[in-house]
Amino acid sequence: MTAPELHPVNLPLAPMLGVWRGRGEGHYPTIDDFSYIEELTFGHVGKPFVAMAQKTRDATSDVPLHAEAGYFRPQGDGTVELVLAQPSGIVEILTGELTSSEGALELDLSSVGVHLSPSAKSVTGTRRRLVIDGDSMVIDMWMAAVGEPMTHHLTGHLQRA
Amino acid sequence: MTAPELHPVNLPLAPMLGVWRGRGEGHYPTIDDFSYIEELTFGHVGKPFVAMAQKTRDATSDVPLHAEAGYFRPQGDGTVELVLAQPSGIVEILTGELTSSEGALELDLSSVGVHLSPSAKSVTGTRRRLVIDGDSMVIDMWMAAVGEPMTHHLTGHLQRA
Repeated sequence: MTAPELHPVNLPLAPMLGVWRGRGEGHYPTIDDFSYIEELTFGHVGKPFVAMAQKTRDATSDVPLHAEAGYFRPQGDGTVELVLAQPSGIVEILTGELTSSEGALELDLSSVGVHLSPSAKSVTGTRRRLVIDGDSMVIDMWMAAVGEPMTHHLTGHLQRA
Repeated sequence: MTAPELHPVNLPLAPMLGVWRGRGEGHYPTIDDFSYIEELTFGHVGKPFVAMAQKTRDATSDVPLHAEAGYFRPQGDGTVELVLAQPSGIVEILTGELTSSEGALELDLSSVGVHLSPSAKSVTGTRRRLVIDGDSMVIDMWMAAVGEPMTHHLTGHLQRA
């Protein structure tokens, strides 16, 4: 199967496409600090969205930590929607702004809806920022959860695999 | 990396695990009938959820049609939660009942929440039923969307790959 042509609305997201690996640090007022190994994949099938799959593992024990899967929907006007599902029972809808140039990209998205399965822990809002320069990515995540206000939670430094 | 041991709450979902391929038929009052090829993958990492990734292609043109990704969360009491994201800008939370025996399974889930990104088409409810007998799966999907009541939309017949 030949690779499909990138849909025109996806062109600004081209610097994201591929597999990224690296390490990150997590902190939150209610838990101990932790380090993790991350793998992040962005793919497309020629349609006007980019699929995302993320997995993290504990940097010491290699035990699986978090995962999430979702889809970026660039709107063609510099804004992007992101829908996400997480094994913790959380689904999210985020919107935000994209700036992109040859080989570089900055995407800053904030939740417009966070919805929980009946048994999920309380998360009320998230923000995700992704900055790519060539083959390097810095990804940050903020979260309002379990009664805490929007607080920085994760920073990952990834390289194109 | 060795395969992790299945988490005890996932034991009733064991008949699902693996890669499934087959064909399906779709219909809805607002569109023409269509046929599709489906690939459905259920995996686990030793934690109390099963990850799902689905892709369909047009049976004639082989063009990608639908995709979705999400996570089943068995609750240990015969009930299961499912969280899903779709590239159409839809996230879903479903709950329902599981019956399972050696090599067989029936799972019937209905949406308790369907949430839309700002540019998504209106879907207000879904139901998904998955019946496995050995290496055969029948998967049905019902949808309330674009003003139509809950209506049967898809039937797929898949075989374990």
